[in-house]
Amino acid sequence: MDAAEFRRRGKEMVDHVADYLEKIEERPVYPDVEPGYLRSLIPTEAPVEPDSYEDIMKDVERVIMPGITHWHSPNFFAYFPAASSYPAMLADMLCSAIGCIGFSWAASPACTELETVMLDWLGKMLQLPECFLAGTHGHGGGVIQGTASEATLVSLLAARCKAIRRVQLLDPKKSEAEILSKLVAYTSEQAHSSVERAALIGAVMMKKVPTDSLYAVRGEMLKKILEEDKAAGLIPFYFCATLGTTPSCAFDHIADLGPLCNQENMWMHIDAAYAGSAFICPEFRPLLNGVEYADSFNFNPHKWMLINFDCSAMWVKKRTDIIGAFKMEPLYLKHENQESGKTFFGLKLSQSHWQIPLGRRFRSLKMWFVFRMYGLQGLQAHIRKQVGLAKEFESLVRADKRFEICAPVVMGLVCFRLKGTNELNQSLLKKITKSREIHLVPCQLSGSFVLRLAICSRSTEFRHIQQAWQHITQLAFELLQEHHH
Amino acid sequence: MDAAEFRRRGKEMVDHVADYLEKIEERPVYPDVEPGYLRSLIPTEAPVEPDSYEDIMKDVERVIMPGITHWHSPNFFAYFPAASSYPAMLADMLCSAIGCIGFSWAASPACTELETVMLDWLGKMLQLPECFLAGTHGHGGGVIQGTASEATLVSLLAARCKAIRRVQLLDPKKSEAEILSKLVAYTSEQAHSSVERAALIGAVMMKKVPTDSLYAVRGEMLKKILEEDKAAGLIPFYFCATLGTTPSCAFDHIADLGPLCNQENMWMHIDAAYAGSAFICPEFRPLLNGVEYADSFNFNPHKWMLINFDCSAMWVKKRTDIIGAFKMEPLYLKHENQESGKTFFGLKLSQSHWQIPLGRRFRSLKMWFVFRMYGLQGLQAHIRKQVGLAKEFESLVRADKRFEICAPVVMGLVCFRLKGTNELNQSLLKKITKSREIHLVPCQLSGSFVLRLAICSRSTEFRHIQQAWQHITQLAFELLQEHHH
Ligand SMILES: Cc1ncc(COP(=O)(O)O)c(C=O)c1O
Ligand SMILES: Cc1ncc(COP(=O)(O)O)c(C=O)c1O
Repeated sequence: MDAAEFRRRGKEMVDHVADYLEKIEERPVYPDVEPGYLRSLIPTEAPVEPDSYEDIMKDVERVIMPGITHWHSPNFFAYFPAASSYPAMLADMLCSAIGCIGFSWAASPACTELETVMLDWLGKMLQLPECFLAGTHGHGGGVIQGTASEATLVSLLAARCKAIRRVQLLDPKKSEAEILSKLVAYTSEQAHSSVERAALIGAVMMKKVPTDSLYAVRGEMLKKILEEDKAAGLIPFYFCATLGTTPSCAFDHIADLGPLCNQENMWMHIDAAYAGSAFICPEFRPLLNGVEYADSFNFNPHKWMLINFDCSAMWVKKRTDIIGAFKMEPLYLKHENQESGKTFFGLKLSQSHWQIPLGRRFRSLKMWFVFRMYGLQGLQAHIRKQVGLAKEFESLVRADKRFEICAPVVMGLVCFRLKGTNELNQSLLKKITKSREIHLVPCQLSGSFVLRLAICSRSTEFRHIQQAWQHITQLAFELLQEHHH
Repeated sequence: MDAAEFRRRGKEMVDHVADYLEKIEERPVYPDVEPGYLRSLIPTEAPVEPDSYEDIMKDVERVIMPGITHWHSPNFFAYFPAASSYPAMLADMLCSAIGCIGFSWAASPACTELETVMLDWLGKMLQLPECFLAGTHGHGGGVIQGTASEATLVSLLAARCKAIRRVQLLDPKKSEAEILSKLVAYTSEQAHSSVERAALIGAVMMKKVPTDSLYAVRGEMLKKILEEDKAAGLIPFYFCATLGTTPSCAFDHIADLGPLCNQENMWMHIDAAYAGSAFICPEFRPLLNGVEYADSFNFNPHKWMLINFDCSAMWVKKRTDIIGAFKMEPLYLKHENQESGKTFFGLKLSQSHWQIPLGRRFRSLKMWFVFRMYGLQGLQAHIRKQVGLAKEFESLVRADKRFEICAPVVMGLVCFRLKGTNELNQSLLKKITKSREIHLVPCQLSGSFVLRLAICSRSTEFRHIQQAWQHITQLAFELLQEHHH
């Protein structure tokens, strides 16, 4: 395929994409296929000679689409949103064309530099304390990670490195292995599975802190465990707070937890994967109070800020903490400006020392396009609209005596259930999933099986919420009738 | 921006991309900016109200392009190639539009299933032993990782978990911490920095094995260290072999190393990040002989197989080894087909247990488009053309008595230098970098400062090789003149 054919096929693809998104509502949101459906639809080997482009595009409809869960359907209410917008897609096309791998400043200066400036823009939108920004000649700065899971892992590894050095400074006879075996990390029992996985990877113990009746961790709960663990000779070194937990969007009390972590020399990381985007609205910003005590903070613009996956924004207070845990620099990554000691706003000249993989795409282009095409106001409007829709849904649920709301509705997530047994609610969800008109996933709260409705698609409007509720109540009605007989 | 405007802007962007790539040769390959150049060119904060699209596109040329290292310029010879092709870009547009996050089978069945089948297609192209394929009802299978660095880390973590379990089975009194402190991983002193970084993350010791005069590790070299370490009470558990090292594209002797690792109960991982793509050509496949002894194998189609970053292909012989090291499954990721025990060709229903991040893009679409649009023959032709160009360059160097070739030219990389001091060669590279006509990076081989010329861009032709050589000899001539005076 040469440039001329790409011009033609690319324009067709632009129309294909626009058609798909404009008519997505007509497709069943959840696919009707059995595991293994795809293998029998395509050859068992790659072709030796090229296939035609027409055949490939036909196969997209024949092979792929039947197996797609349509995340951008207005009837998709599962998990948390996956962000998507036209400006981000345009930027991604440009990013593909430039196709640089930004593992050092020299590998593409614009890639390293735009990223640092975009993270400063975003940090200002969130009113992060200045110490997290790179342009203020402090020690902090931001970096784009692929996912929140990676950000958590990076923070835990930095904390591990710092803790080992600190203990060895006090007691140089202690071996790394000995210290490692005593380190303990903490997180909420409601935290995302990626937090536990980070501890597994980092080979450190992790303990789950119980939550209050609203599924949030409070200072006193952590304090109690810390006292016990210290008395037993363990070394608490890391706490991962969650702002907007995955099951119910609960908010840990970071304003209490932060001072405690500081006092105990523990690294506090904040995982606000979903909810973080909302902090650009002044009415939600108070939930972030206490961030000034944190060592690192992360959220996913690829969830709720209209920037297509992957784009997870992470800030640290002390860049050297992160870099120290990762740094290795072979000759082929060195370049002149680095050797001569010139630095870029005091930053090491690349963000690849801040992350697990070495290679990195030019992801800040997506941020730049989206921030500029929407403006802060446009982004705020998007958040407010989706929170509004969740509140509407909450009202519908509350108005029906057969149902209950299971957790405070703060952002775009509603946790609800039929008053009754877990089996009843499991049956309801099965009916919903089977009907394929809307798509939801469950969660578990205090032993209860709960349905989660998250406002996900940019195209979800009030009428979709109403239809979804009608559909759910209709299925619930049928189910309750069956149970009576 | 609505669908109608996206149709318009998207088509403009397609032309913009095609223009950029068609005229890329006119741009200086290496940017002429100083660290920090970008910050002063754009505002310090995001706009409150939207900017116009025209302004953004103007700024791409004003702000971004001056700071781009043009990886797809025919005059780019640095690092290793970053793959790029029009079919991959088209697939990426579709992937953006579908925008699913494939962290479980249910989250988009097509995403999980196409990936498994594509890795089987690719495995067959490489003539991997059947035990690595998923469709043969064995225990193996493939997964797309973001980068080779992540694949190495995943393999090391799986090996760590397996080793700890094995030792504890023999001696249940031993604590994990005790075992961890005795585990040793090995790799070549020529291995990529990501291998050492994996050990750092995994909190295990790593030792570098010396290489022979061709920069390759041989069985006897590893064997010698193993004997010493075992005698000292250490537990060797992992060896990462490299096929195609970063400095000089050397090939470790896996046919000797493999049996040794098997015998010692060590996990052998093969990192063929760059060179792996060439194994689809029968004439290069012998270099992969011995892969049957490996536990895992990885290479980067995003380097040399025309699939845009990121796309790193990894196969394991026993899926359960990897999954066991990572598995955690909260309720919101469970789905019916999984609960009912149905499986997809014996696979766990998602690949997210095989990787560091949880979320994943629909990257197999890029593979599918590229494999079908090029066919196996087209992909082989691409490899052969680039190897041919490297051989041409090698001949030019060999014909000039002032220069020497520093390592065998097996694939698309030529390591060469001026006969003389390291300082002389450093000066030559400085001149090359400063002139901005071509772009190279150096490496260190046996204490010598060496220039690396890698054939990178799909658009590099013989005339670019000739021009590059003319340019290099011209600068060398000037340099030698200066030194005489
Ligand atoms: C609170 C929280 N943290 C982390 C994650 C994982 O995000 P990612 O896929 O970016 O790793 C999620 C995903 O839903 C989440 O809700
Ligand atoms: C041998 C080798 N391994 C690993 C890597 C790192 O690859 P990635 O950026 O995909 O992690 C490279 C990059 O050049 C390499 O040459």
